[in-house]
Amino acid sequence: MTTPDYFTQYENLAMSRDEDGVLLVRFHTKGGPVTFTGQTHEDFPEALERIALDRDNRAMVLTGTGDSFMDQIDGPSLGEIFKPAAWEKTRVEGAKVLQRLVELPLPVVGVANGPAVIHSEYLLLSDIHIASERATYADVPHPSFGITGGDGVQVVWEEAAGTARAKWLLWTGEPIDARTALDWGVVSEVVAHERAVERGLEIARGLAAKPALYRSLQKQTLNRNLRKRIVQDVPFGMALEGLTAADLAYQPQA
Amino acid sequence: MTTPDYFTQYENLAMSRDEDGVLLVRFHTKGGPVTFTGQTHEDFPEALERIALDRDNRAMVLTGTGDSFMDQIDGPSLGEIFKPAAWEKTRVEGAKVLQRLVELPLPVVGVANGPAVIHSEYLLLSDIHIASERATYADVPHPSFGITGGDGVQVVWEEAAGTARAKWLLWTGEPIDARTALDWGVVSEVVAHERAVERGLEIARGLAAKPALYRSLQKQTLNRNLRKRIVQDVPFGMALEGLTAADLAYQPQA
Amino acid sequence: MTTPDYFTQYENLAMSRDEDGVLLVRFHTKGGPVTFTGQTHEDFPEALERIALDRDNRAMVLTGTGDSFMDQIDGPSLGEIFKPAAWEKTRVEGAKVLQRLVELPLPVVGVANGPAVIHSEYLLLSDIHIASERATYADVPHPSFGITGGDGVQVVWEEAAGTARAKWLLWTGEPIDARTALDWGVVSEVVAHERAVERGLEIARGLAAKPALYRSLQKQTLNRNLRKRIVQDVPFGMALEGLTAADLAYQPQA
Amino acid sequence: MTTPDYFTQYENLAMSRDEDGVLLVRFHTKGGPVTFTGQTHEDFPEALERIALDRDNRAMVLTGTGDSFMDQIDGPSLGEIFKPAAWEKTRVEGAKVLQRLVELPLPVVGVANGPAVIHSEYLLLSDIHIASERATYADVPHPSFGITGGDGVQVVWEEAAGTARAKWLLWTGEPIDARTALDWGVVSEVVAHERAVERGLEIARGLAAKPALYRSLQKQTLNRNLRKRIVQDVPFGMALEGLTAADLAYQPQA
Amino acid sequence: MTTPDYFTQYENLAMSRDEDGVLLVRFHTKGGPVTFTGQTHEDFPEALERIALDRDNRAMVLTGTGDSFMDQIDGPSLGEIFKPAAWEKTRVEGAKVLQRLVELPLPVVGVANGPAVIHSEYLLLSDIHIASERATYADVPHPSFGITGGDGVQVVWEEAAGTARAKWLLWTGEPIDARTALDWGVVSEVVAHERAVERGLEIARGLAAKPALYRSLQKQTLNRNLRKRIVQDVPFGMALEGLTAADLAYQPQA
Amino acid sequence: MTTPDYFTQYENLAMSRDEDGVLLVRFHTKGGPVTFTGQTHEDFPEALERIALDRDNRAMVLTGTGDSFMDQIDGPSLGEIFKPAAWEKTRVEGAKVLQRLVELPLPVVGVANGPAVIHSEYLLLSDIHIASERATYADVPHPSFGITGGDGVQVVWEEAAGTARAKWLLWTGEPIDARTALDWGVVSEVVAHERAVERGLEIARGLAAKPALYRSLQKQTLNRNLRKRIVQDVPFGMALEGLTAADLAYQPQA
Repeated sequence: MTTPDYFTQYENLAMSRDEDGVLLVRFHTKGGPVTFTGQTHEDFPEALERIALDRDNRAMVLTGTGDSFMDQIDGPSLGEIFKPAAWEKTRVEGAKVLQRLVELPLPVVGVANGPAVIHSEYLLLSDIHIASERATYADVPHPSFGITGGDGVQVVWEEAAGTARAKWLLWTGEPIDARTALDWGVVSEVVAHERAVERGLEIARGLAAKPALYRSLQKQTLNRNLRKRIVQDVPFGMALEGLTAADLAYQPQA
Repeated sequence: MTTPDYFTQYENLAMSRDEDGVLLVRFHTKGGPVTFTGQTHEDFPEALERIALDRDNRAMVLTGTGDSFMDQIDGPSLGEIFKPAAWEKTRVEGAKVLQRLVELPLPVVGVANGPAVIHSEYLLLSDIHIASERATYADVPHPSFGITGGDGVQVVWEEAAGTARAKWLLWTGEPIDARTALDWGVVSEVVAHERAVERGLEIARGLAAKPALYRSLQKQTLNRNLRKRIVQDVPFGMALEGLTAADLAYQPQA
Repeated sequence: MTTPDYFTQYENLAMSRDEDGVLLVRFHTKGGPVTFTGQTHEDFPEALERIALDRDNRAMVLTGTGDSFMDQIDGPSLGEIFKPAAWEKTRVEGAKVLQRLVELPLPVVGVANGPAVIHSEYLLLSDIHIASERATYADVPHPSFGITGGDGVQVVWEEAAGTARAKWLLWTGEPIDARTALDWGVVSEVVAHERAVERGLEIARGLAAKPALYRSLQKQTLNRNLRKRIVQDVPFGMALEGLTAADLAYQPQA
Repeated sequence: MTTPDYFTQYENLAMSRDEDGVLLVRFHTKGGPVTFTGQTHEDFPEALERIALDRDNRAMVLTGTGDSFMDQIDGPSLGEIFKPAAWEKTRVEGAKVLQRLVELPLPVVGVANGPAVIHSEYLLLSDIHIASERATYADVPHPSFGITGGDGVQVVWEEAAGTARAKWLLWTGEPIDARTALDWGVVSEVVAHERAVERGLEIARGLAAKPALYRSLQKQTLNRNLRKRIVQDVPFGMALEGLTAADLAYQPQA
Repeated sequence: MTTPDYFTQYENLAMSRDEDGVLLVRFHTKGGPVTFTGQTHEDFPEALERIALDRDNRAMVLTGTGDSFMDQIDGPSLGEIFKPAAWEKTRVEGAKVLQRLVELPLPVVGVANGPAVIHSEYLLLSDIHIASERATYADVPHPSFGITGGDGVQVVWEEAAGTARAKWLLWTGEPIDARTALDWGVVSEVVAHERAVERGLEIARGLAAKPALYRSLQKQTLNRNLRKRIVQDVPFGMALEGLTAADLAYQPQA
Repeated sequence: MTTPDYFTQYENLAMSRDEDGVLLVRFHTKGGPVTFTGQTHEDFPEALERIALDRDNRAMVLTGTGDSFMDQIDGPSLGEIFKPAAWEKTRVEGAKVLQRLVELPLPVVGVANGPAVIHSEYLLLSDIHIASERATYADVPHPSFGITGGDGVQVVWEEAAGTARAKWLLWTGEPIDARTALDWGVVSEVVAHERAVERGLEIARGLAAKPALYRSLQKQTLNRNLRKRIVQDVPFGMALEGLTAADLAYQPQA
């Protein structure tokens, strides 16, 4: 089994695969914790398409690097999102990421290896989601940019934790810790920090051992509702985000 | 039965009621064919609320004045729709009109008394829809303003005429005449021009004679699907309209 | 192949089956045109369950007797439908009929052999629907009883003919003839009166020749949307019918 | 900023607004804990329309008066709800309240200042929901009147707490206390009784400081699913309630 | 009140009814804990139809026998499920069970009297669900047969416990105990083992005392969402199960 | 503007683009009418991804080559579709084609240049659909292979032509001609055979002249319902197709 070319093609995605067919995908920036950029946003849907088409991927672990899942974002790199025509690129890429995550023909174990305060929906769309005891969850970028949180966070938190908890988290911007996430039913296990990725790989190996068709169809069965809600509600949420972004051009000090 | 104050309260709406409880509502501008303005847009949802609460209204005829249902619009009167915060007012009012039309507790007979090339969805949401032989239908304002047609036209044309005809009408901006509308199943009857309103009143009188609860519940029964689609799809359509409107500020000669 | 006992068990249902496995089900009253009663309403869902479980039924033709599909109803036989607890029986049976019609594991050819002005939804739920040139369609009982048409007619007419035609038909109570039904796309073929049932059997024989699994799954594939709409909208429609029925007790001369 | 006339127009609603644009709305009866009446039911949707149109309202706190959110109802004031035509008024008003609550262009903080055993859905539809330590939740009026709980309680409890807890609460009529509501994820914070309203205002002030468009669109984003469910399921629930109410006329000692 | 014939007609269902109209239905095999077979699968939907039609059943308790709700299954008795035409029988019966459980015109109290590691959806579809302290929950048969869990478990767990917990339970096959089920909100009460059935009967008696129409319509009100999801998602889940079953014929040692 | 590499990369897709940004995509086999193969099925979704990402494509015409849109299929090239694991590839590709067609950020004009008796859904998903007078429509491959028609034909025909016409077409396998397609509202224009492609390009040029954001968002607005139905119903249809395919291995002479 040689290393596929796409493993090393994306600036913010480190990939490796073990003998059991478990693909480890880590967000990173130059080997350290990732700073999310417009490039990451553009690359991730393409990477997911490549991962999906490679039948040697039997299961996947999605995590961050070092002590953070994702807590830094390079706003300017996203471009002039206040211009609707520029926002359109973000909107299309964002929609693809969610669709492709739930349509992967293999189970994904999400491992929150630290703060997941940006794009926590990537983890919440995992098939099994575990957390380091140092993990925290929040929605930081939307309130800080002054745009609505419509890129999918609104759907996954509601479906995992119920309407009241989701609305509180997304309106206030306040964080919850790993134990609270466990209480809320958002993660299934909290493990010692240094054990987190290894535990994720362990679970993934168990799932990788199932027949190929089972892995693909079980995933579809268990994600059917989320997939429908993504198609029904995320395009709307992204459009409202785009409107609040466009409004920034007319705010007092925007 | 005295004349309710709301009959004369709205600049572009003429109202009168006969002894059978049939309310005739005509769009007009100073007694002639209406030029749709921001004021019309703001007044119509409020008027519909008043009409709904007045139990003396047993059925309603909705039509235009003279030889036109609606074919003139005063763009600037809608305000700075390219600013999302200003668009929001339009969006909210637009959503209310559609909801309130389908939630009226009485049947509405729509009479296309001439070109219905602006807000044809008002007619297509009627419970019975007839046309003068001079009627035409199109979607003129959206293409001419360069904004998407998401205010409800996309839903009502699709549900009345099927996806292919709806998409053709709304992409091309081309008109269809009354006979074509009859063929498409969008209107139920084409009558001589001078007879159109009278025929509408005649149908409405028949419906007004039914018991109050029957009128209200039959309407809900037969509009349930449209009502669900309005809530599901119009907020999205209006948001996309707002984004294309916001984009106008960045177009070469906007 | 002996004659199953359920063939002769229901007062208003005549059944026979040919060598190709085509079951002919005719509504009748003492061998002539049917007068629909509370008994018919109670028997039909049970008969459909029996038909579904009998694997020797490969296709089915549903029609009336003589020159009428259904145009007589014995109102009093339905019981005190103005009492909600009595209406509940009607509601439950009505819901079962529709569900079971679309869940039959075999294709149904509906043959309108004359006026279908009561329970036309039975025909519109067929997989192939043809009409004698003498057929007519309307909704007679609901307006005549003064109750809303929520038992399924509202769904099937809308899905077959579009919103405007469905609303016109169900508000006005006016009939359409077979040619109009063909123009509207509600029937696929209009045939000479004396040929109608025979033509239905001919089509059914073609379908009966397909493999069992194909017949069952093709039916599910093509009725998925109708089935969802039945579950979503008919319970609501039936509840509104029940309310208008309950209201009769308080009408001036009820 | 003068006091708008609608602040003092409704018998059971006390309103005041601070300099941050936070509107405090308290249910009350003559300054003490509210006894819910037919008048309250009629006034609340109208008040919500007025609140929505007043751009000076930037956020809202909804609570009760004294030590109770709502635990008294004046049954006879609702009118002859066993007559379907009378019930229709209740049904229409009830539907409007829920729609308008979720369509307000501003965030609402619900404060359960004591027992919320009537219309708890008003609180569960808040954007942030907190409780005094003395708060309790139950559905008292439906079982006590012998009518089904279809006015929205069935939707909001299910979406906030899951199907099993919602069904238990609504079938048994038993109460839960504030701590249990916190465990269930129905409230986000339990505070000392005397602090409850002040804490609600504090949260509301934080939300009121956001830009107007953000407040409106974030609310829509996070309430999209609830809004769809309200339109899909509450009209049905209200119809079933009406049928059980109509049935009361035929119960042994009704 | 004589004993209806259907009480003793089904090999794996023991039925008895008390004077309050509470029907106790126990799964069993020769009086001991049940081993689920193809016969059980075929009989249960028919039994539910009989139960629904018998107006003397006012409430129902559903439980197992001895110390187990259901933890043994006789795979071969299900037939050649790897043949799609044989699977079709399973699919149709499975769909009927779920529909009929939620459409019963009476409330059901589910009592997990021990391990519920097969068909736990029967309990989760109850109106009130309680557990013996010895109860456990898991999905054992699907992983052990290598087929996807699409028969309804995917819907009921998600709606009761949220997406993350449901996906974890169904991917891993691991069990949870009664206390965890209580924490997750899946059961409403955990009782001493020997008290479990008696406590279920006690709750059922309270519900049986309500008026007939209330029992039927409250059930529909509170199960509306589950019923829609069953119709939307279970046919798909069952089809995917059938495909994984068909795939078994081509697996290395199938 | 140079020629992108993907224009010549796919065996059965000929692409060219004019100065107005109108991309002409023709299905073909070695320059003549296409014989659809497993390779075409695999290539088309990938090509659509490339087309979507290339901003120089402003509108697209989709047609066949010579006198046929598509009427030949190479069954064996699709692989062992009776094996569910092999079918899975077909299922995934098929789902992608439909999603990507409706998500293209540019309008598509479908031109039926002759028989469209295979994959007619590609044309029916166009934004404007016209036909040569020699065009015919049918569903040939599914009945001839003995598998259900669940790959999307069931959705697009129903939404364009209503339930009765769709069911007739897909059960009988019989063709309709271009005039009938016009009557049914499935095509918007029937043109002389030799003019068909040119007329498609003419319409496409008009649409290509609109602003980029308008083209993308108008498309989304008008395809929202189809997109939701594709996600809701096609995975189910494809699963049933797979089951009928798997069943072929057990048919008498399969």
